[in-house]
Order: sequence, then structure tokens, then C-alpha cells
Amino acid sequence: MIRVVILGAGNVATHLINAFSNAQNVSIEQVYARRQKSLDKYTNKVATTTNLNDLKTADIYIIAIADDAIAALSSLLPQKNKVLVVHTSGSVNINAIDERFRRGVFYPLQTFTKDQSIDFDSIPICLEAQHKEDLVLLEKLASSISGDTYFIDSEQRRNLHIAAVFVNNFTNHMYYIGHQICSEHMLPFQILNPLIEETARKVSTTFPVQAQTGPAKRKDENTVARQLNQVPKDYQEIYKTITKSIIKTYE
Amino acid sequence: MIRVVILGAGNVATHLINAFSNAQNVSIEQVYARRQKSLDKYTNKVATTTNLNDLKTADIYIIAIADDAIAALSSLLPQKNKVLVVHTSGSVNINAIDERFRRGVFYPLQTFTKDQSIDFDSIPICLEAQHKEDLVLLEKLASSISGDTYFIDSEQRRNLHIAAVFVNNFTNHMYYIGHQICSEHMLPFQILNPLIEETARKVSTTFPVQAQTGPAKRKDENTVARQLNQVPKDYQEIYKTITKSIIKTYE
Repeated sequence: MIRVVILGAGNVATHLINAFSNAQNVSIEQVYARRQKSLDKYTNKVATTTNLNDLKTADIYIIAIADDAIAALSSLLPQKNKVLVVHTSGSVNINAIDERFRRGVFYPLQTFTKDQSIDFDSIPICLEAQHKEDLVLLEKLASSISGDTYFIDSEQRRNLHIAAVFVNNFTNHMYYIGHQICSEHMLPFQILNPLIEETARKVSTTFPVQAQTGPAKRKDENTVARQLNQVPKDYQEIYKTITKSIIKTYE
Repeated sequence: MIRVVILGAGNVATHLINAFSNAQNVSIEQVYARRQKSLDKYTNKVATTTNLNDLKTADIYIIAIADDAIAALSSLLPQKNKVLVVHTSGSVNINAIDERFRRGVFYPLQTFTKDQSIDFDSIPICLEAQHKEDLVLLEKLASSISGDTYFIDSEQRRNLHIAAVFVNNFTNHMYYIGHQICSEHMLPFQILNPLIEETARKVSTTFPVQAQTGPAKRKDENTVARQLNQVPKDYQEIYKTITKSIIKTYE
């Protein structure tokens, strides 16, 4: 049985608590948050505390809070012996964790939405640790909720996180612009759903470089000029910048 | 039984021929292409011709060729009586079809890849016609292969096509950039697949405006500056332009 204490009560923490609760060989010893109010949703399920001095003994302490607060919280942990402390962030270095501890990272690469349950089984978990035996323990923990685990160092993870900004944050903004155009012309946005899903599905079987279509790929400058004219003013700069990049990629 | 003649032998034509071949109430009378070589793949299945003067009688003539060539081909059709001629393009006006004919549009909104079969059942088909009875006929034809048909006029369709450029062409370029960043740092691109699929899946249950996450949405300028520094030089302009647009959208 792997005993964990979770520090945090946000999206990632909540999804981890749900996943670990259903895992065979994991025991959530306690959940910590600064304010009791954030913990109310867990009190029926697990032990909770707002006092760092009351933290229970565990094999792994998991800090699942905002990136900027990780270093500060880890330095406040009163644990005396060299316990294993990990954070769950894509962009924070492993060294943000206080040097008094054995450090590690447990980063689930997914977009978590409040109140939307998610199947952890297909979520890749990126692991990092200073010591080989900790990596083994983290992999055991990750395997209990996910079928996909990777060893990724801090430098790689920082870049993976940037890649995720493009394929998630920026892609969603493309969807947003599509939605705006549809609304403006009384078109139901759902009409684009099959296209959106097929475009996403394709990259699991084809490299994006092979899946590219459209006038920019063909360097069809007449069509590009005509389309640009039609794009709402607010999004013309995006249209131009991405088109330029596609042309440069394929010419 | 709806009799169709298909003019064209590219991606869209091939996918339509496959779909209509399996439809109960559709008969493909003939497929036309300029060169015999393009028709070789169909000769076991349907009648073919390279001669417009040999076109058979049909209820609907479907022009599935490059946008720029639609007007010219329709004007070359020798049909004397006012037959129904439709094209399959997202961005070409219905009036591109020669005025001697009853005009229509049969636009399947999807990204078609050669040699990748596709389930037409979930592909939205956008229909337009000058005459109500033709619209009824086109809807009957569309329903034979798809569960999702829409009446969309030329002006709407032109804008829908622009929306599709953002959610398909531009999104695929975001995937491409993610892939480049992964390659450069020895990360397997497949690690991003679940994130890509979840981001796409989300918009079928949530508006993109609600699904947006990331530092630009939070106007977290420190993180934005730090990330920009890390983005490969070639893609910094895209990072800046999209980030600016996200900040403007949510502030």
C-alpha cells in the first residue's frame, strides 16, 4: 500500500483524489488546504487538515497547487526526515521543492475542468525523481491510476508544457474563433464538431505534417487573399501570422 | 432510386463514390474524369468515361473537383434540358454553376485524406439549391449517407469554410508546432495525444470560451514572458499573436 498525503484542493488535487480513491494499492492518508472551506467537499471521504503541523506520515507528499506557490509551501513543510515530496506542475523545475526533501515530480499531462470527470487511465503521467528508488515508487503510484507513464526530466517537461500550450490553449482559441464566426452568421457551432474531432483523431495515426491541408499549404495566394478579406477584423492578424508560418513550413 | 453522375476523381469524389455505393436508394450511373488513369480505380465498380458527350442521364450531376475548375467544367456540360448540377465546395458560390442548369450545392464538411476511409454517417452535409424541390431531392440524397444535413446558403457556407480553416488547417499547424517541439527535445509526440483528443472532445459539451485555460487567459504576464523565451524562434510570432488575442478576449 502506498500512503499519500495531498496538499491542495484545486482541479488537479480533486482529480487525483478521485483517481487514488479508486486505486487498489493507494491510501490517501490526508488532504491539506489552507482554508477549511476548500476541504469541505472531501471531508466525507478522507482525513483533512488546515494545519501543516498535523500532517500524517506518508510515503509520498504530493503538492498540487498553483505553480508560483510550490516552492513556498514545500519550504513550510515541517517533516524532519528526508521524505519524498513531489509537485504536479508541467512547468516548474524539480528543484523548486525544498532541498531538505527527496524531490520528485508527478505531472499528469491533461486539461482538467472542474466538475468534469475524466478517465485517468489514458492520461500520460510524467515522472521525475532524484533517486532511482523514488522513481520506481512514483511509477508504481502512477501505474495504479494510468496506463501511460513516462520518465521526463525538468528540461524536457518544461518544453513539453510549451508544446501543450500550442496543442491545447492555442487550439482552443482556434475553436473559439470558429465559434465566433459561426455565431455571427447564424450557423450552429456543432456543425464543426465532426471536423474538429477528425482533425484531432488524425494525429494519432498520421504526423501533423502529413495531415496539413488548405490554401496556405498549397501556397494558393489568391485563395489566401480572398479568405483574409473575409476573416473578421479581430482575427486577421492571427490568420496572416499562421498562414505565413504554414507557407514557410511547406515551401 | 436517385441516379447520380459524379464528375471528378479526387479525394472528395472517391469518398462520395464509396459512400453512395453502400447507400440503399442511390445508383451511381457513371463517373467522369479528364484522364482515364484517374478512373482506373473505379472501373471494377461503376461505369466511367473521359468524354463529356457520353454522360448518362441522371437526376443529379455532382461536380467534385478543384474550386477553380468548377465554373469551367459546368459550362462544358452538354446536357440540354435543365438538369440539376451541384458542386461539393465549401467556398464556391452556387452561381459558379452554369446558368443553363438548375444549380445546387452538396458540401460535406470534413477533412478527407486519401486512402483513409471515413464514416460518412457523422459528417454534416451542407445543402443549397435554387428550387425547393431540388432541396428536397438533395436532402434525400444526403440522408442516404449522413445523419446530419443542413440548409446553408452560399454566404453562410463561405463563412463556415473560413471557420473550418481555423478549427482544421490552423489547429493542425498548432499540432505541427507541438510535434516540432517534442522532436527537438526527444519527447514522443504520442504523449500529447490524450490532451489533443480531450481538448477537441470538450467543445462538444462546453463552449470554447469556457474551456480556455493557460497563462494568457489568466493574463499571467510573467509566465507568458517566460514561455515566450522558451518557444523556438520560428514560432515566437505565432505565440505572441495568439497570446495577445486570448488576453484581449478575456480581459
